[in-house]
Amino acid sequence: MALDKFFNPESVAVIGATEDPKNITSMIMKNLIEMGFEGRLVPVNPHHDEVFGHKCYPSLLEIKEKIDLTVISIPARFVPEVLRQQATCGIKNAIVVSGGFAESGYKGAILEEEVMKICKEEGIRLMGPNCIGVLDNYSNFSSSFLPWTKVKRPAKGNLSILSQSGSFAICVLDMLSEEGMGVSKVINYGNRADVGESEMIEYLTDDDSTHVIGIYMESVDDGRRFIDASSSCSKSKPIVALKVGRRDSGIEAVKSHTGTIAGKYEIYKAAFKKSGIVEVNGFTEFLDACKVLSMQKPAKGEKILVLTNGGGFGVATSDMCSDTGLDVANTPESVRKVLSEKFPGYFILSNPIDLTGSSGDEDYGIAMKAALVDNDFFDAAIIIPLMPPETMTEGVVEIISQMARESGKPVVICVASGVYTGGVKTKFEEKGLPVFPTPERCVKAMSVLVERGRMNGC
Amino acid sequence: MALDKFFNPESVAVIGATEDPKNITSMIMKNLIEMGFEGRLVPVNPHHDEVFGHKCYPSLLEIKEKIDLTVISIPARFVPEVLRQQATCGIKNAIVVSGGFAESGYKGAILEEEVMKICKEEGIRLMGPNCIGVLDNYSNFSSSFLPWTKVKRPAKGNLSILSQSGSFAICVLDMLSEEGMGVSKVINYGNRADVGESEMIEYLTDDDSTHVIGIYMESVDDGRRFIDASSSCSKSKPIVALKVGRRDSGIEAVKSHTGTIAGKYEIYKAAFKKSGIVEVNGFTEFLDACKVLSMQKPAKGEKILVLTNGGGFGVATSDMCSDTGLDVANTPESVRKVLSEKFPGYFILSNPIDLTGSSGDEDYGIAMKAALVDNDFFDAAIIIPLMPPETMTEGVVEIISQMARESGKPVVICVASGVYTGGVKTKFEEKGLPVFPTPERCVKAMSVLVERGRMNGC
Repeated sequence: MALDKFFNPESVAVIGATEDPKNITSMIMKNLIEMGFEGRLVPVNPHHDEVFGHKCYPSLLEIKEKIDLTVISIPARFVPEVLRQQATCGIKNAIVVSGGFAESGYKGAILEEEVMKICKEEGIRLMGPNCIGVLDNYSNFSSSFLPWTKVKRPAKGNLSILSQSGSFAICVLDMLSEEGMGVSKVINYGNRADVGESEMIEYLTDDDSTHVIGIYMESVDDGRRFIDASSSCSKSKPIVALKVGRRDSGIEAVKSHTGTIAGKYEIYKAAFKKSGIVEVNGFTEFLDACKVLSMQKPAKGEKILVLTNGGGFGVATSDMCSDTGLDVANTPESVRKVLSEKFPGYFILSNPIDLTGSSGDEDYGIAMKAALVDNDFFDAAIIIPLMPPETMTEGVVEIISQMARESGKPVVICVASGVYTGGVKTKFEEKGLPVFPTPERCVKAMSVLVERGRMNGC
Repeated sequence: MALDKFFNPESVAVIGATEDPKNITSMIMKNLIEMGFEGRLVPVNPHHDEVFGHKCYPSLLEIKEKIDLTVISIPARFVPEVLRQQATCGIKNAIVVSGGFAESGYKGAILEEEVMKICKEEGIRLMGPNCIGVLDNYSNFSSSFLPWTKVKRPAKGNLSILSQSGSFAICVLDMLSEEGMGVSKVINYGNRADVGESEMIEYLTDDDSTHVIGIYMESVDDGRRFIDASSSCSKSKPIVALKVGRRDSGIEAVKSHTGTIAGKYEIYKAAFKKSGIVEVNGFTEFLDACKVLSMQKPAKGEKILVLTNGGGFGVATSDMCSDTGLDVANTPESVRKVLSEKFPGYFILSNPIDLTGSSGDEDYGIAMKAALVDNDFFDAAIIIPLMPPETMTEGVVEIISQMARESGKPVVICVASGVYTGGVKTKFEEKGLPVFPTPERCVKAMSVLVERGRMNGC
């Protein structure tokens, strides 16, 4: 596809490359080397013969071989000249990291126009300017100038992130790593002079390694194209959007930040709905929605079983389900009958099912078998196994995940955060069950699965 | 004070004590030994001469010395007899851990009435039944039967927690430990047959080691007394309440869980407001509110400076401030003038102040000095130092915390969660500045300080 070279270039020229740590090209080079990028890496700088062991060329014009992509992070005023050179060499793609364009005022805007004129005339596709660019976690290519020693790179995964904010694009990597979530691509297009989120959604629709798309958005590049692209993409791949610049002060801040107009929030809200996009509020909801959609399938309805050995957690979860429009429907009589024969009288069989502090691993299996596997009343389950009682062991992970599999229904797990429980969380997630540390985050994540189910006509 | 013996008993009799790991008395004994409880520990059980190296008595009647408190976790039907014996011995306090009382139906309710009749006649104060009881982090006393190997005990601190839910009382310990928050007391009174939250608030009002109180509540023991106690207490100590059982399904769940009536939520809401209680929604908000009130003073108004080197974080924070009623007021002209002389033109001086990805530690000092220390326009600040750029170092912690001190205004910090940034979080919190991992949690925490300021007529 046309934009492939931004993600998986066979050869990249880093313009202005140097080993000087004060210059961000050095970090771009170092990152690529450290990541094990397997394409050809070609530094371009008239002042050096070699940069980090790679032969350096005085200009693009001197390079004999084919170059797929340039990464440009030299001062803004020199960018047009580089683009003209790369046109001469037939290089069709550029990531312009440099700032000093439209975001910086009138002069910068003129310069950005000049840059785009060259690109259009010469058929160059441009990402940026004023951007981080891309991380492709499969090709090991990135144009990021932030050191991997300070930002942990996530594992390979099926989530791709589009971000109008560079800082969000970078920090989300660290957050995803900490959450144990994997990533396919992270893309920050900065001023979005050419490539923007609409085209990226079109691109990711056909990208095999992307199953879920998360978008951080201050404004939209092209409303019509965005709705068309999203509507088409969301039929097969869930899209999660975090829209910022919703309120007066946020709208003002967007103007200063990306130099764009945030627009009326209500219009965005309607467009997201029309396009089958799950809208979220806040960074945590964004990550949780991406996570649950990556790990679980949509729910066919909103009847939710809540199962726990901690009554208080059950109550809090019920409340929040009601807040979110999920139905903590009463346990069907037939299920109660089965359970009342197997459980002591003080277990509570209404929904939430409360196995009390006296229960053990096996009780979770019994309850899930009767209420979720053998009965089709509930559409999904929130399971809250609290680990403190001595009768609860890590064995509960296998029991719960087996029942979840057998039920064929979406299940999310609440494991209260804590030192001991950290290990249990990891074990659940290895089995494909998403874990959240509080009832409210579980419920919100479940509501995302229900919303996605409704959209897809499950 | 009357209830002191529940927290700092000089001698405790553990009724039914055994080393049998299947019996929870063994865990109660082991916990106390492991915690280094310095009072006298007296097991009572006719079947043993010694339990975990402590001399065991066949009954309370055989003990010659004075006992301050009994911990009772034997089957419910034997509890009245133990209480009669302790009355004979003049033991005035009991924590009844055992379940099988009012929460379990009609028969249990009759038994609970009998228990309370004995207590009233004999002047015994009772915590429970059906409870975890207490953890006093200063006296190293606890009646918890959950193993400290699976629940990490928090450090000593100035926060005390009242919880109607036992599972919440236990899990919150682990959550607090993970957050690095300290605790004074955690109290779970279960069925609340005698001691309940209203009297506990009265008690904690005069407890020197408690500066902030957090309450998890399904229902209230005595509405009038609760409002009186809270109104009086909240004049000097902030109280945070998480009310669950707000919605239909939650109210039903409360009935099954603690056997109480959750009541009309609107009445609770009004009562909290009247009593100067900060109400929160969800476990995360609960912990964050307790944390920020433990670490920072109330804000005198709602004009909030947002300072960052990550534009996107600034925009998101602005939005959320507006959602929460905080005022991201424009930077005063005089401050802009000072900053425009010191900063490059591409730094954004409107509020949020965006130091961009090119800034370093010192820029935070310059901005805070001008906008927060030397100028009284802003009432408080949310500072969001993103650490990925190479120019940002841990030195920024000292700079920001010094300026926060000099300003005398409340400051909260957003450090996006992540592997590297974990260390920065700890360093900020050592300096007394609370750190939250997302803009939304920072903003919510700040809104708590503003609300508290309003209540106290700051």
